[in-house]
Amino acid sequence: MPDFVLDPRLEGDSLPVTDLPLSTVRLSRDANYPWLIAVPRRAGLVEIIDLDEADRALLMEEIARLSQVLRQTVRCDKLNVAALGNSVAQLHVHVIARRHDDAAWPSPIWGAAPPKAFAAGAAEALAAALAARLK
Amino acid sequence: MPDFVLDPRLEGDSLPVTDLPLSTVRLSRDANYPWLIAVPRRAGLVEIIDLDEADRALLMEEIARLSQVLRQTVRCDKLNVAALGNSVAQLHVHVIARRHDDAAWPSPIWGAAPPKAFAAGAAEALAAALAARLK
Repeated sequence: MPDFVLDPRLEGDSLPVTDLPLSTVRLSRDANYPWLIAVPRRAGLVEIIDLDEADRALLMEEIARLSQVLRQTVRCDKLNVAALGNSVAQLHVHVIARRHDDAAWPSPIWGAAPPKAFAAGAAEALAAALAARLK
Repeated sequence: MPDFVLDPRLEGDSLPVTDLPLSTVRLSRDANYPWLIAVPRRAGLVEIIDLDEADRALLMEEIARLSQVLRQTVRCDKLNVAALGNSVAQLHVHVIARRHDDAAWPSPIWGAAPPKAFAAGAAEALAAALAARLK
């Protein structure tokens, strides 16, 4: 079994938050939305059903944990949870805090607005706040 | 506890497939994509985290079952799984069979192409084929 390696595009578009038992958790560098990405640390995964039942249950609990921590940490009117993977094949799950006044509402975020940079240090500060609550 | 009532917009945009232990399963009337929608039959749900842990695990297994049955029944290059709910608040999970030549690929499907009607009887036939495999 080859080792897990984070897809370079996921790596470039996000910064590290923490590792949960199954997934490495990343924060998107798009400041339009508080947007976490959970990437199960198993090589060769594409679909949720590439995980066995026990790991699927673990993934669901990690999605729930990320959802709860986002709501505790940022303003959040609605959560969006999605495993798409049409552009980056490596299995990854988006958990996004949506706001009624965000750049895409009520549309899904993908392709809706140009990515926006965080102010200097702000992404790292948000990642650290989320990581502290995920411990 | 009030009874579960399917949201009228979800009902209008889809036809019934079958009931699983937690969710009622619907097929979208948009012929652009083989597109199932799982709606947990509990009143008042909005987010996945409105379900308790046992029901979240059940939802994950129902998502997995729908994914497998879609792949057995239609041509499918990629699965898309999403709980968004920005327009229809009632908790529902999309499980969509994507194809490299479909109307939206590689974009997410929402807002990507005008809905397309099925030929007469085709949606009902697909729903019946999926229901037979979900039994």
